[in-house]
Amino acid sequence: MTAIDAWGYFLGAANTLLERRAFQVEHWAADEVVVQVAGCGLCHTDLGFITGQVRTRRELPLILGHEICGTVIAAGRKFTDRVGQRVIVPAVLPCGECELCRAGRDNICQRQKMPGNDFNGGFASHVVVPGRFLCRLPEDLHGFELAELSVIADAVTTPYQSLVRSGVKDDDLVIVIGVGGIGLYMVQHAKNAGAIVIALEIDPDRLAIATAQGADHSLCTQGMTARDIKQEIKSLVHQNSLPEYRWKIFETSGSAAGQSVAFALLSFAGTLGIIGFTMEKLTLRLSNVMAFDAELFGNWGCSPNHYPTVVDQVLNGRIKLRENIEVHPLDDINTVVAQALDHKLQRRAVLIPGG
Amino acid sequence: MTAIDAWGYFLGAANTLLERRAFQVEHWAADEVVVQVAGCGLCHTDLGFITGQVRTRRELPLILGHEICGTVIAAGRKFTDRVGQRVIVPAVLPCGECELCRAGRDNICQRQKMPGNDFNGGFASHVVVPGRFLCRLPEDLHGFELAELSVIADAVTTPYQSLVRSGVKDDDLVIVIGVGGIGLYMVQHAKNAGAIVIALEIDPDRLAIATAQGADHSLCTQGMTARDIKQEIKSLVHQNSLPEYRWKIFETSGSAAGQSVAFALLSFAGTLGIIGFTMEKLTLRLSNVMAFDAELFGNWGCSPNHYPTVVDQVLNGRIKLRENIEVHPLDDINTVVAQALDHKLQRRAVLIPGG
Repeated sequence: MTAIDAWGYFLGAANTLLERRAFQVEHWAADEVVVQVAGCGLCHTDLGFITGQVRTRRELPLILGHEICGTVIAAGRKFTDRVGQRVIVPAVLPCGECELCRAGRDNICQRQKMPGNDFNGGFASHVVVPGRFLCRLPEDLHGFELAELSVIADAVTTPYQSLVRSGVKDDDLVIVIGVGGIGLYMVQHAKNAGAIVIALEIDPDRLAIATAQGADHSLCTQGMTARDIKQEIKSLVHQNSLPEYRWKIFETSGSAAGQSVAFALLSFAGTLGIIGFTMEKLTLRLSNVMAFDAELFGNWGCSPNHYPTVVDQVLNGRIKLRENIEVHPLDDINTVVAQALDHKLQRRAVLIPGG
Repeated sequence: MTAIDAWGYFLGAANTLLERRAFQVEHWAADEVVVQVAGCGLCHTDLGFITGQVRTRRELPLILGHEICGTVIAAGRKFTDRVGQRVIVPAVLPCGECELCRAGRDNICQRQKMPGNDFNGGFASHVVVPGRFLCRLPEDLHGFELAELSVIADAVTTPYQSLVRSGVKDDDLVIVIGVGGIGLYMVQHAKNAGAIVIALEIDPDRLAIATAQGADHSLCTQGMTARDIKQEIKSLVHQNSLPEYRWKIFETSGSAAGQSVAFALLSFAGTLGIIGFTMEKLTLRLSNVMAFDAELFGNWGCSPNHYPTVVDQVLNGRIKLRENIEVHPLDDINTVVAQALDHKLQRRAVLIPGG
């Protein structure tokens, strides 16, 4: 085991700049590998850690970043066959052994490890991760740069897991609330499953992108009440002879306003997927779920089992990805974070240590 | 078609006594039958109509009652083969043709008819109902009086549909909140499915009944906060090596207090079924459902498809029913309603016109 010279951007305390520091990768366990990072996506969760709204599970200082892809350059004895592989590191790394993993609920495994939360993450030259659930990429990346595929971890896979859980199929009516970093992929997954998709968003520019990526109908909800929105969707349904019931609604905005609209849209035999997170509480009549014979689910991450399907869809162009990212040198991370916090990033940022 | 002399108890206006009136059954359609009522259960929903908290879909005056069994004594031309059959009338009678029915969601069919809500119900000598989805009873009632089986419609079947939707199986941990008219059957269904059942209830007498009918553990929650209750259940889980996650929680109390406890108990990969109804709103963090990768569903009635299974379980003694009912003459209905509103009924009342 030869030590590897590495560097990364550490968060020392909430609301401070990330600080570049060199470190040595000296040790990895028998079931771990060392990934040379090609790129790491900047997620809304990272911004929550940086602003102190959400606490990391491991104490600071910590390198953030959980949308990682790269190349395995060293491995513990259980995964020596992985050396040289190009991989995506799932954002949620389950243990594979516990009650939840055995029940097929590995994405919520309570011994799970998340890069940039439980251990040093991907805003670095190298990262040490468990080797077991890495998603190996094929030789032919269909013209993609390896770094670009990093956002598959989380941004593309989490809504895919929601799609699977919701059971969306041909001709279902799907309503996606918020078409940002997660919502745009929700639109695309639903379209690929054969649904008719209505996109709701307060930002008209994002709505235009959602339309370009497959939304059949779009509604700019800026300034509208939940009641107005429901009325507008009913008109749309009526005018276009869309399904009257069994709407599948996906809340990806992670805001109380978005959740209120989502709950108001829930109707007979409807399904509501909560994919975005907010600490804010809502006041609602829970019994509506009974009166509507409806259901509601929340989605934490994505099982590593679904990654190969999603990678395949991206590489084969069924999921548009490059249109939704912008690549920056990792050394610009503090500027990029500031832009993201100011809502000035048009696309999801991928930070590359080689840039 | 010979007119049939009939009588029933009409609700003329909210908060007035039900009034016995004679009427003639003179007409039934080609797809309808006339059932001579053997018995009709008194449900919490009827009390809601009587007190004006819930409005009937058809305007008053109306005969209430939707837990009906009896004998078909006349039929329109499509169902002449049913004459002489002893039947349970499902509380929710779907149309069988619409988008929701075809999707297997017939219990929430929007053209559904409910006796004692959309048309005159079972607190009468006779009722005219659609013939299509009646549940035929076998010759051998295993010692049951026909009238006793009326509560299968709704009280026994609705929690069964919840069981099916929740996917409870061997060794799952099930928590039933409220062990009244619906909750006691929820306990029994869950036990029959192989689950370990914890019953929560504010009334110690009801808890004792739940234990006698299969609850493995019971907790009197009178005066306890949601936090206390969660702590107590965690101790119980720890002491008895019960499953730590994937709890299946069923809220049957139909109260804001019960729903608050239910939502507080929701945890990793948990499922919460809302079976009781209340107009009261709750303030809660909906994002918890996401952080827990959990789900929540509401249950309206039960598909007629499940009735034969439930009837079989009752007749074969796998579901205890006689222990949970008390039979009264229909002419005592106003006294029985008053007792029910005063929470003085120990068991679910079945009203028999022959009594």
